[in-house]
Amino acid sequence: MARPHTFQIGQQRTLFFPNGSLSDLSSILPGRRLILITDQHVYRKHRSAFSGFDTIVLRAGEQYKVQATIDSLVERLIRMEADRKTVLVGVGGGVVTDLVGYLAAIYLRGVDVGFVPTTLLAMVDASIGGKNGVDVGAFKNLVGTTRQPLFLLHDLSLLSTLPTREWSNGFAEIIKHAAIGDEGMFRELLKSDLKVYRNDPVKLRRLIARNVRYKFSVVQQDVAENGERKKLNFGHTLGHALEMQYELSHGEAISLGMVFAAHLSEKMNAFTGLSSLCALLIKYGLPVEAGFSAAKVLQSLKMDKKRSAHSIDFVLLKRIGKAEVRTIPIVDLQRFLKSYA
Amino acid sequence: MARPHTFQIGQQRTLFFPNGSLSDLSSILPGRRLILITDQHVYRKHRSAFSGFDTIVLRAGEQYKVQATIDSLVERLIRMEADRKTVLVGVGGGVVTDLVGYLAAIYLRGVDVGFVPTTLLAMVDASIGGKNGVDVGAFKNLVGTTRQPLFLLHDLSLLSTLPTREWSNGFAEIIKHAAIGDEGMFRELLKSDLKVYRNDPVKLRRLIARNVRYKFSVVQQDVAENGERKKLNFGHTLGHALEMQYELSHGEAISLGMVFAAHLSEKMNAFTGLSSLCALLIKYGLPVEAGFSAAKVLQSLKMDKKRSAHSIDFVLLKRIGKAEVRTIPIVDLQRFLKSYA
Repeated sequence: MARPHTFQIGQQRTLFFPNGSLSDLSSILPGRRLILITDQHVYRKHRSAFSGFDTIVLRAGEQYKVQATIDSLVERLIRMEADRKTVLVGVGGGVVTDLVGYLAAIYLRGVDVGFVPTTLLAMVDASIGGKNGVDVGAFKNLVGTTRQPLFLLHDLSLLSTLPTREWSNGFAEIIKHAAIGDEGMFRELLKSDLKVYRNDPVKLRRLIARNVRYKFSVVQQDVAENGERKKLNFGHTLGHALEMQYELSHGEAISLGMVFAAHLSEKMNAFTGLSSLCALLIKYGLPVEAGFSAAKVLQSLKMDKKRSAHSIDFVLLKRIGKAEVRTIPIVDLQRFLKSYA
Repeated sequence: MARPHTFQIGQQRTLFFPNGSLSDLSSILPGRRLILITDQHVYRKHRSAFSGFDTIVLRAGEQYKVQATIDSLVERLIRMEADRKTVLVGVGGGVVTDLVGYLAAIYLRGVDVGFVPTTLLAMVDASIGGKNGVDVGAFKNLVGTTRQPLFLLHDLSLLSTLPTREWSNGFAEIIKHAAIGDEGMFRELLKSDLKVYRNDPVKLRRLIARNVRYKFSVVQQDVAENGERKKLNFGHTLGHALEMQYELSHGEAISLGMVFAAHLSEKMNAFTGLSSLCALLIKYGLPVEAGFSAAKVLQSLKMDKKRSAHSIDFVLLKRIGKAEVRTIPIVDLQRFLKSYA
């Protein structure tokens, strides 16, 4: 296995292995006890890769990203006599890495954690930056912490079983990165399409690495999310509200959120890239239009973590590759939302 | 109100107001929304002090230091529309500050927290150093985080209603500080007694401040508890085990734990201060002898956070005012415990 890249965030260091496999885990941390935590979908598809590891298998799905799952995982770790030197390894998509990252942050007041993301979305986004947590009722990630993993290991062979919808999910975040901070990547994506990346492992690996570096660079500048990191919420304010209210995937929801934010950017920022953003989203299998209830969405926005009493921090585009965070009064957002929805 | 002392721990800064009152809270953080969280005992005794504040009142007792209490507090905060700028203020003993510190660490991935400790124990120990969390079954503080509060405010008038047993609880930790790191304080304590401090506010305030400074200095050296901070566990390894198994207060349990550790120090370290330590504990109303089951205690020790697979980090004394952390094989501890209990 090639030497890892190192990303330093504050006092925490994350080792990134861009090209490994699950079986490399034992050699990454010799002498440490590992407990792998995954979900049924991943386990069924890649069962043999887990042989020889202590493994906990969770039920799959966002509906299990709740405190009750954490409570039962804590009980499991106690029964397994996991101690402070144990390393938890989350093997799965964003739900698994969010759960395991949170579990590791609180079990015995913190044990080491590593991630092996198994979806494109988790590789380029969910597993990076240390955010973790669980949903509470209708509120996504209402409870959690921000804490960096000890390592990230990418095994691209795990993507071979990924359904098309999951590829689009990942590309939604890749397109977001391009739109807010990397115009060159935006152009590269426009020249290509989903099929090209699925069939060209070298091209795909380069794209993933570019996104990992991009997200780390943003988080390094602002781990506490006071400024630069807020830009990563582009499309997510409305997106999260839609995701909780309708039967949408994360990628579909934030695709619609990005289109909404681009419309708002056109109105407030004289942004001119709306049509090329929509064209790119469509190219990667993502929706740009959907009917939704402005009232329902506003109700959700009321508990957005980026919100204060009367306003919300909203990410707008100035141009493709350049974003800004604007504090928008809730009443203005309400008016625009009603004319839009 | 006098200007606060500032304690820096890593990148986190805690303001310490050694002589204030609850009503000062609004002026400490002007413009911030405060939510006070306390328990029924404290609320009943000091109801008027809470007037004008948003206050959540919890049932009192260690049995409520569990995840279910956190879950219901999260629901309350959602209903109260607490946002990222809200400051939670734990007003109470160690159970309240542990719960509120943990709640603040995870709600919206972290909101600011301050403590107003209402017991001597919480003033000199529980509220300092950032450890928080809840018990899981028989395991104390199995789940939690380490995170510093924004401020600590001492209102010594709150101690006027404290029962004698609670004073002894506090002195157990004060004697611990003296035994492991401050021989001068040990001598001062020997020359005085519980009644003297209860009736002399100036002497008491000086003693409390000395303990606050001492604990902060230890935590500053080693917030992650890899070395120096471990010494604060003197008496706590056995103490926690006894506290979970028998009907003992925290102070009583760690008093017995300190005596056990002093016996072990006599045997392993040629420690000679056992009789003066026992004399001091008795002076402050703390037990030095009790029958307990070695088997039951060993069962508890098996889940001590300071434990690895076959050994446990145990704090021994070299002399009064000087401690050391020794890794002791479980089997040796077992043998000594059987001959002792």
